[in-house]
Amino acid sequence: MPHIMNKKKAVVLLSGGLDSATVLYHAKAQGYKIYALSFDYGQRHKRELRFAEKLVRINKAESHILKIVFPWKGSSLIDRNIKLPDGQVARKEIPGTYVPARNIIFLSFAASYAETIRASKIFIGVNQIDYSNYPDCRKNFLNAFANAIKKGTKIGVSGKAVSIEAPLVGMKKKDIIIKAFKIGVPFEYTWSCYKGGNRPCGKCDSCLIREKGFKEAGIKDPLNVK
Amino acid sequence: MPHIMNKKKAVVLLSGGLDSATVLYHAKAQGYKIYALSFDYGQRHKRELRFAEKLVRINKAESHILKIVFPWKGSSLIDRNIKLPDGQVARKEIPGTYVPARNIIFLSFAASYAETIRASKIFIGVNQIDYSNYPDCRKNFLNAFANAIKKGTKIGVSGKAVSIEAPLVGMKKKDIIIKAFKIGVPFEYTWSCYKGGNRPCGKCDSCLIREKGFKEAGIKDPLNVK
Repeated sequence: MPHIMNKKKAVVLLSGGLDSATVLYHAKAQGYKIYALSFDYGQRHKRELRFAEKLVRINKAESHILKIVFPWKGSSLIDRNIKLPDGQVARKEIPGTYVPARNIIFLSFAASYAETIRASKIFIGVNQIDYSNYPDCRKNFLNAFANAIKKGTKIGVSGKAVSIEAPLVGMKKKDIIIKAFKIGVPFEYTWSCYKGGNRPCGKCDSCLIREKGFKEAGIKDPLNVK
Repeated sequence: MPHIMNKKKAVVLLSGGLDSATVLYHAKAQGYKIYALSFDYGQRHKRELRFAEKLVRINKAESHILKIVFPWKGSSLIDRNIKLPDGQVARKEIPGTYVPARNIIFLSFAASYAETIRASKIFIGVNQIDYSNYPDCRKNFLNAFANAIKKGTKIGVSGKAVSIEAPLVGMKKKDIIIKAFKIGVPFEYTWSCYKGGNRPCGKCDSCLIREKGFKEAGIKDPLNVK
Protein backbone atom coordinates (compact mmCIF):
# COMPACT_ATOMS: atom_id res chain seq x y z
CA MET A 1 0.00 0.00 0.00
CA PRO A 2 2.28 2.77 -1.22
CA HIS A 3 -0.11 5.58 -0.25
CA ILE A 4 0.33 4.56 3.40
CA MET A 5 4.09 4.44 3.03
CA ASN A 6 4.01 8.12 2.20
CA LYS A 7 1.90 9.18 5.16
CA LYS A 8 3.82 10.97 7.89
CA LYS A 9 4.30 8.79 10.94
CA ALA A 10 3.81 9.46 14.62
CA VAL A 11 4.43 7.35 17.71
CA VAL A 12 1.59 7.83 20.22
CA LEU A 13 2.09 6.87 23.85
CA LEU A 14 -1.24 5.22 24.54
CA SER A 15 -2.11 4.20 28.09
CA GLY A 16 -5.76 3.60 27.34
CA GLY A 17 -6.75 6.60 29.45
CA LEU A 18 -8.81 9.57 28.38
CA ASP A 19 -5.91 11.93 27.63
CA SER A 20 -3.80 9.55 25.56
CA ALA A 21 -6.91 8.46 23.62
CA THR A 22 -7.62 12.12 22.87
CA VAL A 23 -4.06 12.58 21.67
CA LEU A 24 -4.38 9.54 19.40
CA TYR A 25 -7.48 11.03 17.74
CA HIS A 26 -5.78 14.43 17.59
CA ALA A 27 -2.73 13.00 15.79
CA LYS A 28 -4.95 11.03 13.44
CA ALA A 29 -6.97 14.15 12.63
CA GLN A 30 -3.67 15.86 11.76
CA GLY A 31 -3.03 13.19 9.14
CA TYR A 32 -0.46 11.01 10.89
CA LYS A 33 -0.20 7.28 10.51
CA ILE A 34 -0.35 6.07 14.11
CA TYR A 35 2.17 3.79 15.80
CA ALA A 36 0.77 3.30 19.30
CA LEU A 37 3.02 2.29 22.17
CA SER A 38 1.64 0.97 25.45
CA PHE A 39 3.28 -0.48 28.55
CA ASP A 40 2.41 -3.35 30.79
CA TYR A 41 4.49 -2.22 33.77
CA GLY A 42 2.72 -3.92 36.63
CA GLN A 43 0.19 -1.13 37.02
CA ARG A 44 -2.82 -1.86 39.27
CA HIS A 45 -5.06 -0.64 36.51
CA LYS A 46 -3.80 -3.01 33.84
CA ARG A 47 -7.38 -2.95 32.66
CA GLU A 48 -6.46 0.25 30.79
CA LEU A 49 -4.48 -1.86 28.31
CA ARG A 50 -7.68 -3.56 27.10
CA PHE A 51 -8.97 -0.11 26.25
CA ALA A 52 -5.70 0.77 24.52
CA GLU A 53 -6.01 -2.37 22.40
CA LYS A 54 -9.61 -1.54 21.56
CA LEU A 55 -8.62 1.98 20.46
CA VAL A 56 -5.82 0.53 18.33
CA ARG A 57 -8.24 -1.87 16.61
CA ILE A 58 -10.85 0.82 15.97
CA ASN A 59 -8.23 3.08 14.41
CA LYS A 60 -6.39 0.31 12.55
CA ALA A 61 -3.14 1.58 14.06
CA GLU A 62 0.20 -0.19 14.31
CA SER A 63 0.98 -0.95 17.93
CA HIS A 64 3.19 -2.58 20.51
CA ILE A 65 2.63 -3.33 24.17
CA LEU A 66 5.97 -3.55 25.96
CA LYS A 67 6.31 -5.46 29.19
CA ILE A 68 8.44 -3.81 31.84
CA VAL A 69 9.19 -5.31 35.22
CA PHE A 70 10.17 -2.73 37.81
CA PRO A 71 12.06 -4.82 40.39
CA TRP A 72 12.43 -1.79 42.68
CA LYS A 73 8.75 -0.78 43.00
CA GLY A 74 8.55 2.42 45.08
CA SER A 75 5.05 3.49 44.04
CA SER A 76 1.57 2.58 45.20
CA LEU A 77 0.60 2.32 41.53
CA ILE A 78 2.82 -0.73 40.98
CA ASP A 79 3.18 -2.10 44.52
CA ARG A 80 0.02 -3.55 46.02
CA ASN A 81 1.67 -3.53 49.47
CA ILE A 82 1.51 0.28 49.47
CA LYS A 83 -1.93 1.79 49.99
CA LEU A 84 -3.30 4.05 47.25
CA PRO A 85 -3.61 7.57 48.68
CA ASP A 86 -7.05 9.15 48.96
CA GLY A 87 -7.93 11.13 45.86
CA GLN A 88 -7.54 14.87 45.37
CA VAL A 89 -8.22 17.03 42.34
CA ALA A 90 -5.55 19.69 42.92
CA ARG A 91 -2.43 18.46 44.66
CA LYS A 92 0.36 20.57 46.05
CA GLU A 93 2.60 17.57 46.78
CA ILE A 94 3.64 14.65 44.58
CA PRO A 95 1.51 11.68 45.72
CA GLY A 96 2.50 8.06 46.38
CA THR A 97 1.10 7.01 43.01
CA TYR A 98 4.12 8.66 41.38
CA VAL A 99 6.22 5.99 39.61
CA PRO A 100 9.89 7.07 39.56
CA ALA A 101 10.92 8.13 36.04
CA ARG A 102 7.89 6.47 34.41
CA ASN A 103 7.40 8.92 31.57
CA ILE A 104 11.16 9.20 31.12
CA ILE A 105 11.25 5.46 30.46
CA PHE A 106 8.14 5.54 28.23
CA LEU A 107 9.51 8.43 26.18
CA SER A 108 12.88 6.69 25.83
CA PHE A 109 11.22 3.67 24.26
CA ALA A 110 9.10 5.99 22.11
CA ALA A 111 12.30 7.67 20.91
CA SER A 112 13.79 4.29 20.00
CA TYR A 113 10.59 3.29 18.16
CA ALA A 114 10.32 6.64 16.38
CA GLU A 115 13.93 6.58 15.25
CA THR A 116 13.63 3.02 13.97
CA ILE A 117 10.47 3.62 11.89
CA ARG A 118 11.53 7.19 10.98
CA ALA A 119 8.58 8.88 12.66
CA SER A 120 8.99 12.62 13.03
CA LYS A 121 6.86 13.03 16.14
CA ILE A 122 6.07 11.45 19.48
CA PHE A 123 2.66 12.35 20.91
CA ILE A 124 2.08 12.17 24.65
CA GLY A 125 -1.12 12.96 26.54
CA VAL A 126 0.39 14.62 29.60
CA ASN A 127 -1.33 17.54 31.23
CA GLN A 128 -0.09 19.86 33.93
CA ILE A 129 -3.27 21.70 34.84
CA ASP A 130 -5.74 19.15 36.22
CA TYR A 131 -3.27 16.45 37.20
CA SER A 132 -1.55 14.72 40.10
CA ASN A 133 1.47 17.03 40.10
CA TYR A 134 3.83 14.46 38.58
CA PRO A 135 7.04 16.21 37.45
CA ASP A 136 7.29 14.06 34.32
CA CYS A 137 4.00 15.52 33.04
CA ARG A 138 5.28 19.09 32.82
CA LYS A 139 6.27 21.11 29.79
CA ASN A 140 9.74 22.04 31.03
CA PHE A 141 10.57 18.36 31.51
CA LEU A 142 9.34 17.55 27.98
CA ASN A 143 11.53 20.30 26.53
CA ALA A 144 14.55 19.00 28.41
CA PHE A 145 13.85 15.44 27.29
CA ALA A 146 13.38 16.50 23.65
CA ASN A 147 16.80 18.11 23.84
CA ALA A 148 18.31 14.90 25.25
CA ILE A 149 16.93 12.77 22.39
CA LYS A 150 18.13 15.35 19.90
CA LYS A 151 21.65 15.00 21.31
CA GLY A 152 21.58 11.27 21.92
CA THR A 153 20.08 9.71 18.78
CA LYS A 154 21.45 9.18 15.29
CA ILE A 155 18.48 10.97 13.75
CA GLY A 156 18.88 13.82 16.24
CA VAL A 157 22.55 14.48 15.56
CA SER A 158 21.82 14.32 11.82
CA GLY A 159 19.61 17.38 12.29
CA LYS A 160 16.24 15.68 11.85
CA ALA A 161 15.24 15.42 15.48
CA VAL A 162 12.10 13.65 16.62
CA SER A 163 9.89 16.22 18.34
CA ILE A 164 7.64 15.64 21.32
CA GLU A 165 4.08 16.88 20.99
CA ALA A 166 1.97 17.34 24.10
CA PRO A 167 -1.16 19.05 22.76
CA LEU A 168 -3.03 18.77 26.08
CA VAL A 169 -0.27 19.95 28.41
CA GLY A 170 -1.76 23.36 29.14
CA MET A 171 -5.46 22.45 28.93
CA LYS A 172 -8.02 22.07 31.67
CA LYS A 173 -9.60 18.63 31.92
CA LYS A 174 -12.94 20.17 31.01
CA ASP A 175 -11.49 21.49 27.75
CA ILE A 176 -9.74 18.21 26.97
CA ILE A 177 -13.09 16.45 27.30
CA ILE A 178 -14.81 18.99 25.03
CA LYS A 179 -12.02 18.60 22.46
CA ALA A 180 -12.23 14.79 22.74
CA PHE A 181 -15.98 14.94 22.20
CA LYS A 182 -15.55 17.07 19.07
CA ILE A 183 -12.95 14.77 17.47
CA GLY A 184 -14.94 11.63 18.22
CA VAL A 185 -13.06 9.93 21.05
CA PRO A 186 -15.17 6.97 22.24
CA PHE A 187 -15.22 7.73 25.98
CA GLU A 188 -16.55 4.26 26.72
CA TYR A 189 -13.19 2.83 25.59
CA THR A 190 -11.01 4.99 27.85
CA TRP A 191 -10.01 3.98 31.36
CA SER A 192 -8.80 6.33 34.10
CA CYS A 193 -9.31 4.66 37.50
CA TYR A 194 -6.10 3.66 39.28
CA LYS A 195 -7.78 0.75 41.03
CA GLY A 196 -8.64 -1.08 37.84
CA GLY A 197 -11.71 -2.87 39.17
CA ASN A 198 -14.78 -3.69 37.09
CA ARG A 199 -16.09 -0.16 37.52
CA PRO A 200 -14.24 3.10 38.31
CA CYS A 201 -13.79 3.49 42.08
CA GLY A 202 -14.84 7.14 42.03
CA LYS A 203 -12.34 7.97 44.77
CA CYS A 204 -8.77 8.01 43.44
CA ASP A 205 -7.12 11.15 41.97
CA SER A 206 -7.73 9.92 38.49
CA CYS A 207 -11.45 9.25 39.02
CA LEU A 208 -12.00 12.57 40.79
CA ILE A 209 -10.22 14.59 38.08
CA ARG A 210 -12.17 12.79 35.34
CA GLU A 211 -15.51 13.24 37.10
CA LYS A 212 -14.94 16.95 37.68
CA GLY A 213 -13.91 17.40 34.03
CA PHE A 214 -17.01 15.72 32.61
CA LYS A 215 -19.24 17.65 34.99
CA GLU A 216 -17.72 21.00 34.02
CA ALA A 217 -17.84 20.09 30.32
CA GLY A 218 -21.52 19.22 30.63
CA ILE A 219 -20.92 15.85 28.97
CA LYS A 220 -22.03 12.50 30.30
CA ASP A 221 -19.26 9.98 31.03
CA PRO A 222 -20.51 6.60 29.82
CA LEU A 223 -18.28 4.94 32.44
CA ASN A 224 -19.86 6.84 35.31
CA VAL A 225 -22.73 4.75 36.61
CA LYS A 226 -23.52 6.94 39.61
CA MET B 1 24.42 -3.81 59.08
CA PRO B 2 23.96 -0.13 59.94
CA HIS B 3 27.42 0.87 58.68
CA ILE B 4 26.36 -0.14 55.18
CA MET B 5 23.07 1.73 55.51
CA ASN B 6 25.03 4.93 55.89
CA LYS B 7 27.24 4.42 52.86
CA LYS B 8 26.46 6.66 49.92
CA LYS B 9 24.80 4.78 47.10
CA ALA B 10 25.46 4.69 43.37
CA VAL B 11 23.71 2.96 40.50
CA VAL B 12 26.29 1.56 38.06
CA LEU B 13 25.23 0.65 34.53
CA LEU B 14 27.14 -2.60 34.12
CA SER B 15 27.22 -4.28 30.73
CA GLY B 16 29.99 -6.68 31.66
CA GLY B 17 32.38 -4.92 29.27
CA LEU B 18 35.75 -3.44 30.09
CA ASP B 19 34.60 0.17 30.49
CA SER B 20 31.60 -0.46 32.74
CA ALA B 21 33.68 -2.84 34.87
CA THR B 22 36.27 -0.09 35.27
CA VAL B 23 33.56 2.34 36.29
CA LEU B 24 32.26 -0.14 38.88
CA TYR B 25 35.72 -0.39 40.47
CA HIS B 26 36.13 3.39 40.22
CA ALA B 27 32.84 4.03 42.05
CA LYS B 28 33.71 1.42 44.67
CA ALA B 29 37.12 3.04 45.21
CA GLN B 30 35.29 6.32 45.80
CA GLY B 31 33.38 4.68 48.65
CA TYR B 32 30.01 4.08 47.06
CA LYS B 33 27.78 1.14 47.81
CA ILE B 34 27.15 -0.33 44.37
CA TYR B 35 23.75 -1.06 42.84
CA ALA B 36 24.56 -2.57 39.47
CA LEU B 37 22.03 -2.49 36.65
CA SER B 38 22.39 -4.68 33.56
CA PHE B 39 20.15 -5.32 30.58
CA ASP B 40 19.26 -8.43 28.68
CA TYR B 41 18.03 -6.67 25.53
CA GLY B 42 18.52 -9.33 22.92
CA GLN B 43 22.15 -8.40 22.31
CA ARG B 44 24.21 -10.85 20.24
CA HIS B 45 26.84 -10.78 22.95
CA LYS B 46 24.56 -11.81 25.80
CA ARG B 47 27.67 -13.56 27.09
CA GLU B 48 28.67 -10.19 28.59
CA LEU B 49 25.94 -10.65 31.21
CA ARG B 50 27.75 -13.66 32.69
CA PHE B 51 30.71 -11.38 33.22
CA ALA B 52 28.49 -8.70 34.74
CA GLU B 53 27.12 -11.28 37.19
CA LYS B 54 30.62 -12.44 38.05
CA LEU B 55 31.72 -8.85 38.75
CA VAL B 56 28.64 -8.33 40.93
CA ARG B 57 29.44 -11.45 42.96
CA ILE B 58 33.13 -10.56 43.41
CA ASN B 59 32.16 -7.10 44.63
CA LYS B 60 29.18 -8.21 46.73
CA ALA B 61 27.08 -5.57 44.97
CA GLU B 62 23.32 -5.28 44.80
CA SER B 63 22.12 -5.87 41.25
CA HIS B 64 19.32 -6.29 38.79
CA ILE B 65 19.28 -7.61 35.25
CA LEU B 66 16.29 -6.17 33.39
CA LYS B 67 14.88 -7.92 30.36
CA ILE B 68 13.91 -5.66 27.49
CA VAL B 69 12.36 -6.86 24.27
CA PHE B 70 12.84 -4.44 21.39
CA PRO B 71 10.04 -5.41 19.00
CA TRP B 72 11.30 -2.95 16.39
CA LYS B 73 14.95 -4.10 16.09
CA GLY B 74 16.78 -1.74 13.69
CA SER B 75 20.34 -2.64 14.72
CA SER B 76 22.75 -5.40 13.77
CA LEU B 77 23.53 -5.78 17.47
CA ILE B 78 20.04 -7.06 18.26
CA ASP B 79 18.88 -8.39 14.88
CA ARG B 80 20.73 -11.45 13.64
CA ASN B 81 19.26 -10.91 10.16
CA ILE B 82 21.45 -7.82 9.76
CA LYS B 83 25.16 -8.48 9.21
CA LEU B 84 27.60 -7.03 11.75
CA PRO B 85 29.71 -4.41 9.97
CA ASP B 86 33.46 -4.97 9.63
CA GLY B 87 35.34 -3.47 12.55
CA GLN B 88 37.04 -0.08 12.63
CA VAL B 89 38.87 1.66 15.45
CA ALA B 90 38.05 5.27 14.50
CA ARG B 91 34.71 5.74 12.82
CA LYS B 92 33.45 8.86 11.13
CA GLU B 93 29.92 7.50 10.62
CA ILE B 94 27.52 5.85 13.07
CA PRO B 95 27.67 2.10 12.31
CA GLY B 96 24.87 -0.45 12.00
CA THR B 97 25.59 -1.73 15.50
CA TYR B 98 23.98 1.45 16.86
CA VAL B 99 20.83 0.54 18.82
CA PRO B 100 18.32 3.43 18.64
CA ALA B 101 18.13 5.22 21.99
CA ARG B 102 19.83 2.38 23.88
CA ASN B 103 21.65 4.45 26.46
CA ILE B 104 18.64 6.76 26.77
CA ILE B 105 16.58 3.74 27.81
CA PHE B 106 19.30 2.37 30.10
CA LEU B 107 19.78 5.74 31.80
CA SER B 108 16.02 6.12 32.23
CA PHE B 109 15.83 2.87 34.16
CA ALA B 110 18.93 3.89 36.11
CA ALA B 111 17.18 7.14 37.05
CA SER B 112 14.13 5.21 38.24
CA TYR B 113 16.33 2.84 40.27
CA ALA B 114 18.43 5.68 41.72
CA GLU B 115 15.38 7.69 42.73
CA THR B 116 13.75 4.67 44.40
CA ILE B 117 16.80 3.70 46.49
CA ARG B 118 17.87 7.34 47.00
CA ALA B 119 21.21 6.98 45.24
CA SER B 120 22.85 10.29 44.47
CA LYS B 121 24.78 9.17 41.41
CA ILE B 122 24.48 7.08 38.27
CA PHE B 123 27.80 5.85 36.87
CA ILE B 124 28.07 5.00 33.18
CA GLY B 125 31.14 3.74 31.31
CA VAL B 126 30.67 5.62 28.07
CA ASN B 127 33.65 6.96 26.19
CA GLN B 128 33.77 9.30 23.22
CA ILE B 129 37.42 9.01 22.24
CA ASP B 130 38.09 5.40 21.22
CA TYR B 131 34.52 4.39 20.44
CA SER B 132 32.06 3.58 17.66
CA ASN B 133 30.76 7.14 17.34
CA TYR B 134 27.44 6.43 19.04
CA PRO B 135 25.72 9.75 19.88
CA ASP B 136 24.44 8.40 23.20
CA CYS B 137 28.03 7.98 24.43
CA ARG B 138 28.88 11.68 24.22
CA LYS B 139 29.24 14.21 27.01
CA ASN B 140 26.78 16.74 25.57
CA PHE B 141 24.09 14.05 25.45
CA LEU B 142 24.78 13.09 29.08
CA ASN B 143 24.47 16.72 30.18
CA ALA B 144 21.16 17.05 28.34
CA PHE B 145 19.85 13.83 29.85
CA ALA B 146 20.93 14.82 33.37
CA ASN B 147 18.93 18.01 32.91
CA ALA B 148 15.89 15.97 31.79
CA ILE B 149 15.97 13.77 34.89
CA LYS B 150 16.43 16.82 37.08
CA LYS B 151 13.24 18.28 35.61
CA GLY B 152 11.27 15.05 35.39
CA THR B 153 11.78 13.28 38.71
CA LYS B 154 10.45 13.93 42.20
CA ILE B 155 13.96 13.99 43.64
CA GLY B 156 15.09 16.32 40.85
CA VAL B 157 12.38 18.93 41.33
CA SER B 158 13.01 18.78 45.10
CA GLY B 159 16.50 20.11 44.38
CA LYS B 160 18.46 16.92 45.11
CA ALA B 161 19.02 15.78 41.55
CA VAL B 162 20.68 12.48 40.69
CA SER B 163 23.88 13.25 38.80
CA ILE B 164 25.37 11.24 35.96
CA GLU B 165 29.04 10.39 36.26
CA ALA B 166 30.97 9.31 33.19
CA PRO B 167 34.56 9.20 34.45
CA LEU B 168 35.90 7.61 31.23
CA VAL B 169 34.14 9.84 28.70
CA GLY B 170 37.22 11.82 27.69
CA MET B 171 39.84 9.08 28.10
CA LYS B 172 41.73 7.09 25.50
CA LYS B 173 41.20 3.33 25.66
CA LYS B 174 44.86 2.93 26.52
CA ASP B 175 44.45 5.15 29.57
CA ILE B 176 41.23 3.44 30.62
CA ILE B 177 43.10 0.12 30.60
CA ILE B 178 45.98 1.56 32.64
CA LYS B 179 43.48 3.00 35.14
CA ALA B 180 41.60 -0.32 35.26
CA PHE B 181 44.86 -2.17 35.91
CA LYS B 182 45.72 0.17 38.79
CA ILE B 183 42.36 -0.18 40.55
CA GLY B 184 42.32 -3.96 40.20
CA VAL B 185 39.73 -4.66 37.47
CA PRO B 186 39.89 -8.39 36.67
CA PHE B 187 40.23 -8.18 32.88
CA GLU B 188 39.45 -11.89 32.55
CA TYR B 189 35.89 -11.14 33.69
CA THR B 190 35.16 -8.39 31.16
CA TRP B 191 33.66 -9.07 27.74
CA SER B 192 33.83 -6.74 24.76
CA CYS B 193 33.28 -8.75 21.55
CA TYR B 194 29.98 -8.03 19.80
CA LYS B 195 29.77 -11.56 18.40
CA GLY B 196 29.58 -13.22 21.80
CA GLY B 197 31.18 -16.50 20.74
CA ASN B 198 33.38 -18.63 22.98
CA ARG B 199 36.38 -16.43 22.23
CA PRO B 200 36.55 -12.81 21.07
CA CYS B 201 36.28 -12.61 17.25
CA GLY B 202 39.15 -10.12 16.97
CA LYS B 203 37.41 -8.36 14.08
CA CYS B 204 34.46 -6.27 15.29
CA ASP B 205 34.79 -2.61 16.38
CA SER B 206 34.75 -3.60 19.99
CA CYS B 207 37.51 -6.23 19.65
CA LEU B 208 39.71 -3.93 17.56
CA ILE B 209 39.37 -1.01 19.99
CA ARG B 210 40.12 -3.28 22.95
CA GLU B 211 43.13 -4.89 21.26
CA LYS B 212 44.63 -1.53 20.29
CA GLY B 213 44.09 -0.23 23.84
CA PHE B 214 45.84 -3.15 25.53
CA LYS B 215 48.69 -3.01 23.03
CA GLU B 216 49.25 0.72 23.60
CA ALA B 217 48.97 0.29 27.38
CA GLY B 218 51.59 -2.46 27.28
CA ILE B 219 49.33 -4.77 29.25
CA LYS B 220 48.41 -8.32 28.30
CA ASP B 221 44.71 -9.00 27.74
CA PRO B 222 43.96 -12.39 29.34
CA LEU B 223 41.13 -12.86 26.82
CA ASN B 224 43.39 -12.39 23.82
CA VAL B 225 44.67 -15.80 22.76
CA LYS B 226 46.38 -14.64 19.58
